[in-house]
Amino acid sequence: MVMNPIGNLNKIFESRIRLGVMSMLMVNEEISFNDLKEMLEVTDGNLASHLSTLEENGYLKVHKGFIGRKTNTTYSITKNGEKAFKSHLAALEAMIRFNQ
Amino acid sequence: MVMNPIGNLNKIFESRIRLGVMSMLMVNEEISFNDLKEMLEVTDGNLASHLSTLEENGYLKVHKGFIGRKTNTTYSITKNGEKAFKSHLAALEAMIRFNQ
Repeated sequence: MVMNPIGNLNKIFESRIRLGVMSMLMVNEEISFNDLKEMLEVTDGNLASHLSTLEENGYLKVHKGFIGRKTNTTYSITKNGEKAFKSHLAALEAMIRFNQ
Repeated sequence: MVMNPIGNLNKIFESRIRLGVMSMLMVNEEISFNDLKEMLEVTDGNLASHLSTLEENGYLKVHKGFIGRKTNTTYSITKNGEKAFKSHLAALEAMIRFNQ
């Protein structure tokens, strides 16, 4: 039986925007909502809904802070998030190798 | 400006099942509905809807044939499909490198 090329892909990471958020969180201790929005070129609403799905799944943490009197919400990856995203990347690499 | 890690990802390939279908079509001249269903471990309805989206986007062709008196529908990748999927795989590889 040939291996299922999409065997270990994680359904939660099926969206480009979530892939983008996790990629950014893997290489930044913490990152603000606005930086994510600018970097991934997405709308507020779209980004907010993906962030809450990732949070509900325990893949990122939210920090509500202030800069002066302005609220500054930042996000950081959790241990679970890092583990899940690394195995998703490995599954993507296996799929890419399947195609070579 | 750091590169957008999801810059060139193709929205059409955001679903694991479509990734699986394209992977199978890249390494098989032609493949039947049942082989795809078994390999990707998906339901008829789910597979059928993803196949029609890929067909509408010109990424695969459908062949209605018969085995004896039984209909045998097979699928094959188009030039456009191959080109689009290869650039999606390259964009995924770039995102994976972004994470290393």
